[in-house]
Amino acid sequence: MTFEVYVLRIGHRPARDKRITTHVGLVARAFGARGMILDCRDEKVLSSLSMVCKNWGGSFHLSFTEDPYDYCIKWKNDGGEIIHLTMYGINLPLVINDIKKSCKNKLVVVGAEKVPRFYYEIADWNVAIGNQPHSEVAALAVFLLELLDGWVFRSSFENAKIKIIPSEKGKRVIKVSK
Amino acid sequence: MTFEVYVLRIGHRPARDKRITTHVGLVARAFGARGMILDCRDEKVLSSLSMVCKNWGGSFHLSFTEDPYDYCIKWKNDGGEIIHLTMYGINLPLVINDIKKSCKNKLVVVGAEKVPRFYYEIADWNVAIGNQPHSEVAALAVFLLELLDGWVFRSSFENAKIKIIPSEKGKRVIKVSK
Repeated sequence: MTFEVYVLRIGHRPARDKRITTHVGLVARAFGARGMILDCRDEKVLSSLSMVCKNWGGSFHLSFTEDPYDYCIKWKNDGGEIIHLTMYGINLPLVINDIKKSCKNKLVVVGAEKVPRFYYEIADWNVAIGNQPHSEVAALAVFLLELLDGWVFRSSFENAKIKIIPSEKGKRVIKVSK
Repeated sequence: MTFEVYVLRIGHRPARDKRITTHVGLVARAFGARGMILDCRDEKVLSSLSMVCKNWGGSFHLSFTEDPYDYCIKWKNDGGEIIHLTMYGINLPLVINDIKKSCKNKLVVVGAEKVPRFYYEIADWNVAIGNQPHSEVAALAVFLLELLDGWVFRSSFENAKIKIIPSEKGKRVIKVSK
């Protein structure tokens, strides 16, 4: 893989979206993105995600931006491209090969309910995971699964304190000592 | 496809899980399951999902069970099989072909944080979408995507009042009149 993937979560409302945004962050990490940028400072989301990173390893980056428009403009100026996940977009199978061909770093924009027109315009790709209402968590998972060729199934995270041994029944967890 | 797929959402706590469970239901519908069974009566989740079904079409079934253990036992007695999605399970690529080969109706069990041992035992398959913590919404989406060969991308729903015309920029929605 010659590009890096970051997720920009927009429209986060702390009172309402804590758990959904936490799921977006966990999916970003588990499916192979390098980090998530939130458009709103929310220490509770940050601490949930930091705790997972501490225990399960890896170097997932978390940050906030007060100006997500500016963040996107700078991302493009730095040579990156933007993929906006939206049910109004073109379905993934029609565009995934073109997206994978490009070596540019990718910012995946994941919105909540109402997404300003700005993102549709600045995005290099407006991509749908089906044209029905469902979930930004699901859309991000399927997009990263396809973009990174199923990295989630062969992932490895440095400095993990906990690892799972996959099993047919029950739970097998090992604690890794240094 | 010779089997039907239903989703059993367990461990739902109305105060905490409304939005996550609503996303589970929306993903179940959009990715091709026939219905969702909740282990707890929650009229708010029911009304959100019913509204989507009314506008976007299809015949997605919603129901509640007061005894999810008994529901699972009856499902098996009726000749169905059970797939429990859990990060402790065997990774999807290792088992998906065997699961698809079977023509039995499938109940996909999707838990919240703590899942009783019962489900690990009664499941024919304990399946992981990677062995990292992420999201039951994401796990369900990826599982149904693979099980139903990307049905989400060619889905059609009868009696829809609203349809999206996929577009490269912006939103195109048509209202369907009868």
